[in-house]
Amino acid sequence: MARSVGRICKGFQRLGLLSKQTQLIPFTRVPVGTVRTIVTLPSFLFPQPRDFSLPNPSWGSEMTRMYEHYESQCEVETEGGQKQKGPWQRLPSYNRLLKYATGGVYLSKIIQSKARLFTRNIRNPGAAFEYVLFVNKEEQKCVCILQAGHLLEGPPGHVHGGAIATMIDTVTGTHATILSGPVMTANLNINYRRPIPLGSTVLLESSLEKKEGRKTFITCRVTSTDGSKLHTESSVLFLSITASHLLGG
Amino acid sequence: MARSVGRICKGFQRLGLLSKQTQLIPFTRVPVGTVRTIVTLPSFLFPQPRDFSLPNPSWGSEMTRMYEHYESQCEVETEGGQKQKGPWQRLPSYNRLLKYATGGVYLSKIIQSKARLFTRNIRNPGAAFEYVLFVNKEEQKCVCILQAGHLLEGPPGHVHGGAIATMIDTVTGTHATILSGPVMTANLNINYRRPIPLGSTVLLESSLEKKEGRKTFITCRVTSTDGSKLHTESSVLFLSITASHLLGG
Repeated sequence: MARSVGRICKGFQRLGLLSKQTQLIPFTRVPVGTVRTIVTLPSFLFPQPRDFSLPNPSWGSEMTRMYEHYESQCEVETEGGQKQKGPWQRLPSYNRLLKYATGGVYLSKIIQSKARLFTRNIRNPGAAFEYVLFVNKEEQKCVCILQAGHLLEGPPGHVHGGAIATMIDTVTGTHATILSGPVMTANLNINYRRPIPLGSTVLLESSLEKKEGRKTFITCRVTSTDGSKLHTESSVLFLSITASHLLGG
Repeated sequence: MARSVGRICKGFQRLGLLSKQTQLIPFTRVPVGTVRTIVTLPSFLFPQPRDFSLPNPSWGSEMTRMYEHYESQCEVETEGGQKQKGPWQRLPSYNRLLKYATGGVYLSKIIQSKARLFTRNIRNPGAAFEYVLFVNKEEQKCVCILQAGHLLEGPPGHVHGGAIATMIDTVTGTHATILSGPVMTANLNINYRRPIPLGSTVLLESSLEKKEGRKTFITCRVTSTDGSKLHTESSVLFLSITASHLLGG
């Protein structure tokens, strides 16, 4: 169990979702005694996982423009010409929280080794969810720029309501984890106002509503990138968890 | 516009989602005068689309057992030994509602030709959503048997909340369309009670709560196949639409 807890925490940590105060052993560290063996092995045995939040050729001009807008605010120049951290921070994104999640009786080794994060399960760039998240810790806000690919269809020519719900859950869940540590979605309430055309780029803006004990309430709006069209409004309730909540099924 | 309406109606029809009263020209019929040309062309030019709701080798024993349970009630034998329609009806499922959705200015031809239904966008059997829907028109119920593949991961070893939301939207949306004709999701409210282990088979049961004018209210429960574990409870509001609602963006 302790091993499982460690792995789950490391998974959140790898996504940059645990604050420095709660960080345990970084992913790259290994127990004393095994360090020498590992550092002498060639680096191709430990390839860096792909960060899906970085630009790729499938990104359209709107996605790129919005990315550059927030990326430029991640590092700012002081009057003295020095660079320092800006108000926003880009969050990296991988296709697995944990390489091998332990699941006891219910999770076969085959499923463990093949499992991929739902929002990053298609490697073909631009085909499904192209997105990047930025967090502003001072303002307790998250934004996500989403370019909705052709494999996300629901109503003809438009994004599936479930794909929109998936991104809302992802963005608010990431935000809640940054604010409260590991959480699980308890309630997801979405009002769909206007369908999202397939292929378009939209903005998801997530804000902390309140925290009450184990509960974190987050709201999220999905709009056009200029904010003129409201596609959905939602409120999401998260409950703080320990690993035993998850492993208990 | 009339052409667009026709195409959208045909899409619903192809999925068996329009009643006989509202059926327009079936997909296989073509205008008089072109019939002769088409029937003389070899059949491989008009391949049948794959029905994803039929069993495939990736289905586990639980998925197969539940499928056979409902499939056996789609056709029943009378006392005289004759076969007749049973209380349940299986709904076929394809990877596109329409081959070419018209979207006017916003939908490029490239996106049109590549678009795939979100829940059927991965062809590798067993990797993502394996599901089949059955409808019981007399009881105004739908059931969906879902086997959640390894590409649907959210929390380590468990199904993503967005993937569950996607299936709830899909099942209740199909049900609402059977009951009320073309609809769009207006509100999706999900309570997550217990996470779903990756690789497991669950049952989604959708019931009509009420109809009020353009509104159709559907509830949906996700449980283990024996009903002993409740995973989620949800209520979904749909609004009846005409094609102009969709095409208006």
